[in-house]
Amino acid sequence: MSVTATFTVTGMTCGHCVSSVTEELTELDGVTDVAVELDSGAVTVTSTRELSQAEVKAAITTAGYDLVG
Amino acid sequence: MSVTATFTVTGMTCGHCVSSVTEELTELDGVTDVAVELDSGAVTVTSTRELSQAEVKAAITTAGYDLVG
Repeated sequence: MSVTATFTVTGMTCGHCVSSVTEELTELDGVTDVAVELDSGAVTVTSTRELSQAEVKAAITTAGYDLVG
Repeated sequence: MSVTATFTVTGMTCGHCVSSVTEELTELDGVTDVAVELDSGAVTVTSTRELSQAEVKAAITTAGYDLVG
């Protein structure tokens, strides 16, 4: 099973921010890929299970950014 | 001997950028303090000897940013 979900993250301003968000999301159980588009804030997460909004939000908050919605 | 010099660095957008610049400058021989103001790009370096523009520029370039002047 492979699930792809796209979220919007605000507050990322540079490649370091992208790395921080990528790192935190990669640590979630089952996540196999994270793609971040800095300009738009679009974050696409691929995983082997459906992720809850709560755990995605927690990871992004831990990285120091905000999840829209 | 304590020398304080202020430089202007462009391209820093967040705290991670400030950390990168601070780290690189701190590694220069004799540097005892680095203060970075993100908004203005002002970087104040305190050292036990006079630093050359070339070595400061090299450190900032290594961090991934540009020295003005």
